[in-house]
Amino acid sequence: MLGAMQDWELRVTGLIDHAAREHGDREIVTHWADGTQSRTNWREVRRDALKMVQALRRLGLQPQDRVATLAMNHSRHLVTWYGAPGAGCVLHTINPRLFDDQLGFIINHAEDRVLIYDAAFQPIVDRLRPLCPGIEHYICFDSHEHAPAFDDWIGAEDGEAQWTSGDERDPCMLCYTSGTTGHPKGVLYSHRSNMLHTLAMIGTSCLALEPRSCVLPIVPMFHANNWGMPWGCAATGAKLVYSQVNDPSALCALIEKEQVSHVAGVPTVWFAFLQHLDETGKDMPPIAYAISGGAAFPRSVVERLMRSGVRVGHAWGMTETSPIATVSYEGADWDALSFDEQVDRKCLQGRVVYGSEVRIVSLDDHETLLPHDGTTSGALQVRGHWTIRRYFKTEEDASDEQGWFDTGDVATILPDGSVRLTDRTKDVIKSGGEWISSVELENAAVGHPDVVEAAAIGVAHPKWDERPILIVVPRGGSNVCGEDVREFLRDKVASWWLPDAVELVSSLPHTGTGKISKKDLRVQFKDYTLPR
Amino acid sequence: MLGAMQDWELRVTGLIDHAAREHGDREIVTHWADGTQSRTNWREVRRDALKMVQALRRLGLQPQDRVATLAMNHSRHLVTWYGAPGAGCVLHTINPRLFDDQLGFIINHAEDRVLIYDAAFQPIVDRLRPLCPGIEHYICFDSHEHAPAFDDWIGAEDGEAQWTSGDERDPCMLCYTSGTTGHPKGVLYSHRSNMLHTLAMIGTSCLALEPRSCVLPIVPMFHANNWGMPWGCAATGAKLVYSQVNDPSALCALIEKEQVSHVAGVPTVWFAFLQHLDETGKDMPPIAYAISGGAAFPRSVVERLMRSGVRVGHAWGMTETSPIATVSYEGADWDALSFDEQVDRKCLQGRVVYGSEVRIVSLDDHETLLPHDGTTSGALQVRGHWTIRRYFKTEEDASDEQGWFDTGDVATILPDGSVRLTDRTKDVIKSGGEWISSVELENAAVGHPDVVEAAAIGVAHPKWDERPILIVVPRGGSNVCGEDVREFLRDKVASWWLPDAVELVSSLPHTGTGKISKKDLRVQFKDYTLPR
Ligand SMILES: Nc1ncnc2c1ncn2[C@@H]1O[C@H](COP(=O)(O)OP(=O)(O)OP(=O)(O)O)[C@@H](O)[C@H]1O
Ligand SMILES: Nc1ncnc2c1ncn2[C@@H]1O[C@H](COP(=O)(O)OP(=O)(O)OP(=O)(O)O)[C@@H](O)[C@H]1O
Ligand SMILES: [Mg+2]
Ligand SMILES: [Mg+2]
Repeated sequence: MLGAMQDWELRVTGLIDHAAREHGDREIVTHWADGTQSRTNWREVRRDALKMVQALRRLGLQPQDRVATLAMNHSRHLVTWYGAPGAGCVLHTINPRLFDDQLGFIINHAEDRVLIYDAAFQPIVDRLRPLCPGIEHYICFDSHEHAPAFDDWIGAEDGEAQWTSGDERDPCMLCYTSGTTGHPKGVLYSHRSNMLHTLAMIGTSCLALEPRSCVLPIVPMFHANNWGMPWGCAATGAKLVYSQVNDPSALCALIEKEQVSHVAGVPTVWFAFLQHLDETGKDMPPIAYAISGGAAFPRSVVERLMRSGVRVGHAWGMTETSPIATVSYEGADWDALSFDEQVDRKCLQGRVVYGSEVRIVSLDDHETLLPHDGTTSGALQVRGHWTIRRYFKTEEDASDEQGWFDTGDVATILPDGSVRLTDRTKDVIKSGGEWISSVELENAAVGHPDVVEAAAIGVAHPKWDERPILIVVPRGGSNVCGEDVREFLRDKVASWWLPDAVELVSSLPHTGTGKISKKDLRVQFKDYTLPR
Repeated sequence: MLGAMQDWELRVTGLIDHAAREHGDREIVTHWADGTQSRTNWREVRRDALKMVQALRRLGLQPQDRVATLAMNHSRHLVTWYGAPGAGCVLHTINPRLFDDQLGFIINHAEDRVLIYDAAFQPIVDRLRPLCPGIEHYICFDSHEHAPAFDDWIGAEDGEAQWTSGDERDPCMLCYTSGTTGHPKGVLYSHRSNMLHTLAMIGTSCLALEPRSCVLPIVPMFHANNWGMPWGCAATGAKLVYSQVNDPSALCALIEKEQVSHVAGVPTVWFAFLQHLDETGKDMPPIAYAISGGAAFPRSVVERLMRSGVRVGHAWGMTETSPIATVSYEGADWDALSFDEQVDRKCLQGRVVYGSEVRIVSLDDHETLLPHDGTTSGALQVRGHWTIRRYFKTEEDASDEQGWFDTGDVATILPDGSVRLTDRTKDVIKSGGEWISSVELENAAVGHPDVVEAAAIGVAHPKWDERPILIVVPRGGSNVCGEDVREFLRDKVASWWLPDAVELVSSLPHTGTGKISKKDLRVQFKDYTLPR
């Protein structure tokens, strides 16, 4: 048919071109581990990314080759987010908190040719060298002691280059899941999936980014596409504030000094943040929007933020969903709700925005569709423009023919479409043919003033198949005992959910992203004998 | 490369699927010409659109066939926005205010097979019948007197159908320009261009749509893709309020009753609206966001809206840009500006959001790039994901090899990227080798209390090539004369810009969208003899 609109490939380099052209002076601030601060802006970041494109070409890197980073949040790390894809390469952000064997596995699996790392991780790099012979080039972001320094490496170039062009379906980035439930798996984002995720996430219902926004992503750049922040901020020309260290007092000072409007972090970050305010007697800094995800957001934290007039964005997603799939945005009835009801809403994992779809199916057959009635819980499935189809280097799709991807999470869906996460499929406890939510047991247990952390797991039972036990970290100095906790739970959960035993431990095992590792706990309590 | 994200076609039907699934109860309200009101919702609109898909298939319509509407704003019209593209057809929205010969021309040019129209336009339809033999089926939105009624037509179907699927580059919609400067030209939107425009327009910097929004688009659905409203509201689940008539008192009542948050209209609509408030002594209704575009937004209106606490979104664009290309959003320095400076900013035509790009080139050669210094003016060019490449049924691209499309507008661009429109290329007056902005002359003239409307055009001059004359509509009852107006302008424009003559007339010719038709004025004053 004659007649047409223009047709440009959706490439992430278009975002930095826009930011440099329309918001070139908008700053990118970094607070470095040594306490110093530096400033650059979108125009400079683009120029540095183009220099990196030249530097990668000089090393002989080809389109689709993997360029890895092992680094905290800072402006040089941001440069690589555009420099690697700008050369047609795939940026592979690595989580330095993974264990050595996991690190070796994913670097070799990804076939990384270049590794750019923070000097603070030199010990890791030294241990990895023998494990990862495929890495041809090491570059250090902030030192020239053991490898060429990043600034020198790109400083040899003039930035007079063009981005590598190509199809919007080309791969752009590789992130591995955090390994909470198994070996990390690689998710390969395309330029297109990242661009559509970006256009959705900047929307008012989602992260509400605009040129006036000033964003402090405490969520690490190595985790889950950094929640899309480097893309969304460039798309809107927002200011970015980074800290190489996550010390709450430094973060608080940064928020005030740089007039941060948006702060994004996992719940433990928020927890530390509020604790710091308590300890120092400081007021809540005047942020406009607090964004959380990655784990359940405790009601007490949500409420406290909202009481201070902060908008709360509680998102659910996973590496496999780029990562934002749902967010607890304000619905049509929002203004008619009481404050408590509003807090309740924000505790939910939220609703999809255009571009994603969710449903729940039976945990037994993973097929039977379940109603969105707010009580029935089932296996949560998702599909959409930025949901995974197939893991990196696997031979089979991870989603079914209709695109449904099994998230491994267990949820109920409310009639309005809100998702309430209740568990992970691997963690639910099956007792007498019925499912017990480990998360709900844990949430109830941490309500006890002397319980710092709690984990519920199922142990084998001759009659009931599985019965729950609760493993608890008591507060230092308290003399709470297991029976106290059990008593405390008695009026909070169904009687048949009551754990058969409560064990006290001094600490729980955690994964590289700070989630409780139930996998390890289950190994630890494999031969546990239930009291009769 | 192994590994992939999901890949769904970007089709507009995905928007209504989302709206029906996630915001199904959110209402669509219509105030009909007879004073009655009706309510439907996104779920029902989707079901009706699926019925229309079936009805179109029953008529034998094929993918890419054109389905035309000749109608004001109402919920049935909205159904056709999804029903026609849902059957793979192209929706062609026709402006009923065009002249008969223009209507006949575009209907035949578009090869419309179906025409769905408001009963109020029966006289037009009767005149068109003989002119447009290609129309096989007439359907009337709100009567069954002269053609099958829309509700009966779709009411014969059950809605148990699937959308026609296809490529995201398939055409979706056809809009003709309003014919201000020449014969209307057809712009053929693709699903993809509409989808990317939608994702951009709902952003915080642009129209800031979310499920809580309640939108009253006073801009007609037949004009310039209705500024994307039917797509953006579905994408976010916003409530839509329509009025088949544009009487300010009915609109005011609707705004209050339905708690409208977003109102979108051309400046004349805002003008009538404020005049109504003055005449009735009413307060500004509590809208949150006033959106204007299509013509310059007078400072007095912008200021008055902002004084009432209303956010102003002043957009520039054209049928060829889907239509939103720039919007005067709040920049990084917004909060530091004085109120007057903020008003000044909102009077500008605004800045691009990600997805579009603008530049200015010399009016003489249409090639030499001009600086963005806020003073140099030139021919405004635009390109991007939702900018036209080629007009419907033409053999040549309308944009150049780099995608630059000549808008026919004259503008300066400020260092921050803000566009200030000064004229149309066809309307600028070339005197002694220099350009005079007709718009600036007119803006200055309407500052005179006794001038209702003014138009500046150039007339041939032996020495200077062209000289400006000003044609003015005086206020009824005033006895202002031409020389008074000239005196008034003396300290407001450069002396060589002063019109050589000021002519008083009782009215100016207008186009179908209410813009002054300089084309007609130039014909009218073709043989004008300048005073010596
Ligand atoms: N808002 C939230 N509330 C509760 N849990 C959440 C929330 N957001 C994310 N999660 C949890 O985090 C998971 C996604 O985490 P991520 O992709 O980082 O790796 P992982 O699932 O922990 O690791 P692996 O997939 O290797 O086991 C989700 O599947 C969910 O279990
Ligand atoms: N904010 C604005 N301020 C001033 N003028 C505007 C603004 N927005 C749009 N316009 C004018 O409207 C034009 C686009 O109008 P539209 O596409 O409806 O048809 P038209 O240009 O009037 O008709 P034709 O192209 O047939 O001559 C722009 O090119 C510009 O001249
Ligand atoms: Mg996972
Ligand atoms: Mg035009």
